[in-house]
Amino acid sequence: MPRLLLLLLSLLSFLLPHASSLDYCVADTSLPQTFSGFPCKNPSNLTADDFSYSGLANPGNTSNTIKATVTPAFLTEFPALNGLGLAVGRVDVAPGGVIPLHTHPDANEALVLIQGTLIVGFVDTSNKAYIKSLKTGDVFVFPQGLLHFQVNSGTTPAFAIITLNSAAPGAQLTSFSLFSSDFSSKLIETTTFLSEAEVKRLKTLLGGSN
Amino acid sequence: MPRLLLLLLSLLSFLLPHASSLDYCVADTSLPQTFSGFPCKNPSNLTADDFSYSGLANPGNTSNTIKATVTPAFLTEFPALNGLGLAVGRVDVAPGGVIPLHTHPDANEALVLIQGTLIVGFVDTSNKAYIKSLKTGDVFVFPQGLLHFQVNSGTTPAFAIITLNSAAPGAQLTSFSLFSSDFSSKLIETTTFLSEAEVKRLKTLLGGSN
Amino acid sequence: MPRLLLLLLSLLSFLLPHASSLDYCVADTSLPQTFSGFPCKNPSNLTADDFSYSGLANPGNTSNTIKATVTPAFLTEFPALNGLGLAVGRVDVAPGGVIPLHTHPDANEALVLIQGTLIVGFVDTSNKAYIKSLKTGDVFVFPQGLLHFQVNSGTTPAFAIITLNSAAPGAQLTSFSLFSSDFSSKLIETTTFLSEAEVKRLKTLLGGSN
Amino acid sequence: MPRLLLLLLSLLSFLLPHASSLDYCVADTSLPQTFSGFPCKNPSNLTADDFSYSGLANPGNTSNTIKATVTPAFLTEFPALNGLGLAVGRVDVAPGGVIPLHTHPDANEALVLIQGTLIVGFVDTSNKAYIKSLKTGDVFVFPQGLLHFQVNSGTTPAFAIITLNSAAPGAQLTSFSLFSSDFSSKLIETTTFLSEAEVKRLKTLLGGSN
Amino acid sequence: MPRLLLLLLSLLSFLLPHASSLDYCVADTSLPQTFSGFPCKNPSNLTADDFSYSGLANPGNTSNTIKATVTPAFLTEFPALNGLGLAVGRVDVAPGGVIPLHTHPDANEALVLIQGTLIVGFVDTSNKAYIKSLKTGDVFVFPQGLLHFQVNSGTTPAFAIITLNSAAPGAQLTSFSLFSSDFSSKLIETTTFLSEAEVKRLKTLLGGSN
Amino acid sequence: MPRLLLLLLSLLSFLLPHASSLDYCVADTSLPQTFSGFPCKNPSNLTADDFSYSGLANPGNTSNTIKATVTPAFLTEFPALNGLGLAVGRVDVAPGGVIPLHTHPDANEALVLIQGTLIVGFVDTSNKAYIKSLKTGDVFVFPQGLLHFQVNSGTTPAFAIITLNSAAPGAQLTSFSLFSSDFSSKLIETTTFLSEAEVKRLKTLLGGSN
Repeated sequence: MPRLLLLLLSLLSFLLPHASSLDYCVADTSLPQTFSGFPCKNPSNLTADDFSYSGLANPGNTSNTIKATVTPAFLTEFPALNGLGLAVGRVDVAPGGVIPLHTHPDANEALVLIQGTLIVGFVDTSNKAYIKSLKTGDVFVFPQGLLHFQVNSGTTPAFAIITLNSAAPGAQLTSFSLFSSDFSSKLIETTTFLSEAEVKRLKTLLGGSN
Repeated sequence: MPRLLLLLLSLLSFLLPHASSLDYCVADTSLPQTFSGFPCKNPSNLTADDFSYSGLANPGNTSNTIKATVTPAFLTEFPALNGLGLAVGRVDVAPGGVIPLHTHPDANEALVLIQGTLIVGFVDTSNKAYIKSLKTGDVFVFPQGLLHFQVNSGTTPAFAIITLNSAAPGAQLTSFSLFSSDFSSKLIETTTFLSEAEVKRLKTLLGGSN
Repeated sequence: MPRLLLLLLSLLSFLLPHASSLDYCVADTSLPQTFSGFPCKNPSNLTADDFSYSGLANPGNTSNTIKATVTPAFLTEFPALNGLGLAVGRVDVAPGGVIPLHTHPDANEALVLIQGTLIVGFVDTSNKAYIKSLKTGDVFVFPQGLLHFQVNSGTTPAFAIITLNSAAPGAQLTSFSLFSSDFSSKLIETTTFLSEAEVKRLKTLLGGSN
Repeated sequence: MPRLLLLLLSLLSFLLPHASSLDYCVADTSLPQTFSGFPCKNPSNLTADDFSYSGLANPGNTSNTIKATVTPAFLTEFPALNGLGLAVGRVDVAPGGVIPLHTHPDANEALVLIQGTLIVGFVDTSNKAYIKSLKTGDVFVFPQGLLHFQVNSGTTPAFAIITLNSAAPGAQLTSFSLFSSDFSSKLIETTTFLSEAEVKRLKTLLGGSN
Repeated sequence: MPRLLLLLLSLLSFLLPHASSLDYCVADTSLPQTFSGFPCKNPSNLTADDFSYSGLANPGNTSNTIKATVTPAFLTEFPALNGLGLAVGRVDVAPGGVIPLHTHPDANEALVLIQGTLIVGFVDTSNKAYIKSLKTGDVFVFPQGLLHFQVNSGTTPAFAIITLNSAAPGAQLTSFSLFSSDFSSKLIETTTFLSEAEVKRLKTLLGGSN
Repeated sequence: MPRLLLLLLSLLSFLLPHASSLDYCVADTSLPQTFSGFPCKNPSNLTADDFSYSGLANPGNTSNTIKATVTPAFLTEFPALNGLGLAVGRVDVAPGGVIPLHTHPDANEALVLIQGTLIVGFVDTSNKAYIKSLKTGDVFVFPQGLLHFQVNSGTTPAFAIITLNSAAPGAQLTSFSLFSSDFSSKLIETTTFLSEAEVKRLKTLLGGSN
């Protein structure tokens, strides 16, 4: 039997573990990234812990102005996602809370509502709004790059799992991009038709300069 | 002001709603599909309900032999996923239950454990097994095409949300492909090293012919 | 020599014109589209005119409120682009004119300024604004999905060629998605922090309902 | 045992054969194609024969001017390749034979020499030529879109298997595109620097008009 | 004439050899890889030998338990394949030999039988087996991620060329992943329905621990 | 109000600027590239100037043999294009000038004629030529990998903007690949049917060796 084993092992050296055959590519975030992700960690040092992330266990803190928070398990937090085209997160929204209007420039999103109720919606490029009240267990999809939001108009905390088809999805919150940034008030007024007074008010509220 | 509006609307006809600019492509499953999905439904007939799916609200039935079930929100059940490269589902595993060893030939998977505990794991192409006990809130990823499983060794029902980076992910359960199919016993023995007796036993157990 | 020719022609039937080898796929827009484009017209009916489009010859009309217009040569206008991952257009902006803040959910954009001057810019997902005054001949890129704009602060008409890496790029103009749509004023206020008065004013200005 | 089986089968209806989960997509060539391939045949009618093709069994006929031929197993001949990003073929070159200079506009190629010897080569976009004499068993790669050729300068027939990373690769033979076409002699001269006499000679030789 | 040449050369510096225009990207395997391959070697040091590989010239050794072997020309052996989405190999199977049941997690495969006969097949995700006896010259395709095998039931050695649409395809041999690994016997039994005795027998046979 | 701001800012640390969420990836060309581009520059050091390029402002020099030139704004000149799948350039052709027959091995091209007239065309893989005289403002597309050209047969300079769906498109000029290279005259004759005399003449004219 040992001889059989020996032969099989020599076979395996042909059939199987080619160094460059990548089953996965856990990010080595100490190296510079490309547009398609980070270089891979040496697979021989990996353990099951590298493929696991525990940061979604607890509800996010909603004691803030918007009474809501997003807790990501994205590439930054969970390097195993590198190259997998997939990220997840949890969204916690207290009663009266809101995830403000935003887009994901490079990812579609699916939301599964685990607890509570949410009003969610998006607007498409023909300016048609799709808005729906979700009950626990409902799934909703937000197509890539379109303006969308989540609001908890119920009386209990809402908790949802979100998933996006990018390992490192970005998010652009419209009001923060306008009013928490150094995007000049004058140009905002010109390119959005908002009044000078309103732009000034929101710049003050959200901390923007210029 | 009406004149302003008129001018703006004429502008919009240039800037915005080109028929062929696809924000999304809800599947018209009455038409033949290609490898990259179904033709799109006419967007003018869509409502928010097309982007929502309620089939994950209730736990799947686990009163079966494996004491587990997967409830998909895939392209078949949720046509809005067409072309979005994303699908979700829920996994319910009763105490002692198991999602048998399987692969997804065309998708990576991330699992978020919502309730209970699960032992999960996968084996890579160098025959290294990555196995871990998950607690509520943990996330785990299963890279594309690799053998993996979920087992509830706890005393309470486990409930997880899974997501895959394909709108219509397939799943190949190894034992069912071998023993619930018409794959001949002789060829199974030859190509797996299993004994004739064991193959016969499992063919009987799982309903395979040949 | 005729025999030589005959042999060569019989060779060609092997080497060359397989019906399913697609050099191009001019859209048959009478058939339903998929997320990756339209079915192809029969190549034997095509002429050079199918690969040419003359709709950008004249400046777009800028006698409108924003004193600007975009003239597209996108898939709808120019079916030869089907599947090529590329579209072009011309932008004309009169002095004082503006292309309002918008995003392209599925395409990067490069702008080449042919005549005049433009102030252009975008804001990224870390709320950093990149803004620049362009002179004739300058090129500027706007990454996918990010808020951006063009303003003519000069005294002569500006004319630019834009190009996007999608055959059918969409555009979402933020203010129109909010204020020309049926997106309810209440939800806009909640998800953007804009005041009720400002939302009402802009709904009236831009023709939105709700 | 039947009850176990029943339960397992009901499980399978959840876990397995979703109509839209595509393991493969054998082309239905009676329907119009898109740039990404043909619609799929109904999988329930398929047999193992659909995944097999016997057209490469015999050497191609080399009794022609170039003493060579390519026998394709491409999408047209072998519809199972639809969507798989892969095609194969056999190349037979008699002593003194040649596969003339050509490009594949949309595919990389690898050639495995099974019998005989071949001189093969390509020129890159910096005008550097990579040319090598291959012995039986050698593999050579020709990167996408670059001019390349195969010549049998040996004394025995050469037989190679080629593979390309496209289900329906095209081939453009430079001399045939110029001299077997209706591309006008005048424009050929202008755009290639060839002499009028040479263009006329080759037009006559290869059957071109104009 | 020299002046003409000079002018043409100055033209070429515009038209042609931009350092970053990649015709190919031969892997520099001394640098860390990403999920999409290795960094490129400096093209100025390359010769035709870099695009050629001679490792498939001789039949693989079949004096082993399975009487078969796979000789790869994959990225590891043949760095020119880096980024080309293509790999080839040879399969040698002695009479009575077998390539055990396995999957390629990230690649479709086409097999061209050059010598001898083979029984080949795969099982799809609906547990339908597609099995066929191939004659010399036949081509067969195995879709990505599905369980498949090759058996030589003839009386002469079989030799096949395989090609896959990945530069570095992986292979997971089911029995080796289960029984040559440290995947615990208990979990194998639970997730496959195999008996304890059979799992122990195969662990001993194939060298697994646990 | 400061407290509100503080809370919002703490929210933003969750929602927004993850280091690995890439809105863009300006090339760090000092590091080795992969087939999918260069590593990214640190975004915190970027300014609007990184997204702008002024090299197309002036007409290219057409005082050369072909009376034409291409001025690229490709990845080499404009590192912001890294990963964006898009490049632009300007083409200047004096009366009687010509951009010789060439292919782009990895990109489709669209040309917008800004000034003058051009005769443009391409030949497809079935040897069908598509040729057209363009007027100012016309757009024409050249599908990937196909032989094409531009000729100014008018009496005024022609100026066009070109765009390609690759950040670093290559170009292979057929006559230069044959006659400005070290591709041996003998092999050129064999693989193109050109006469020895013509090959020698063009090698001398264009500077090739061998």
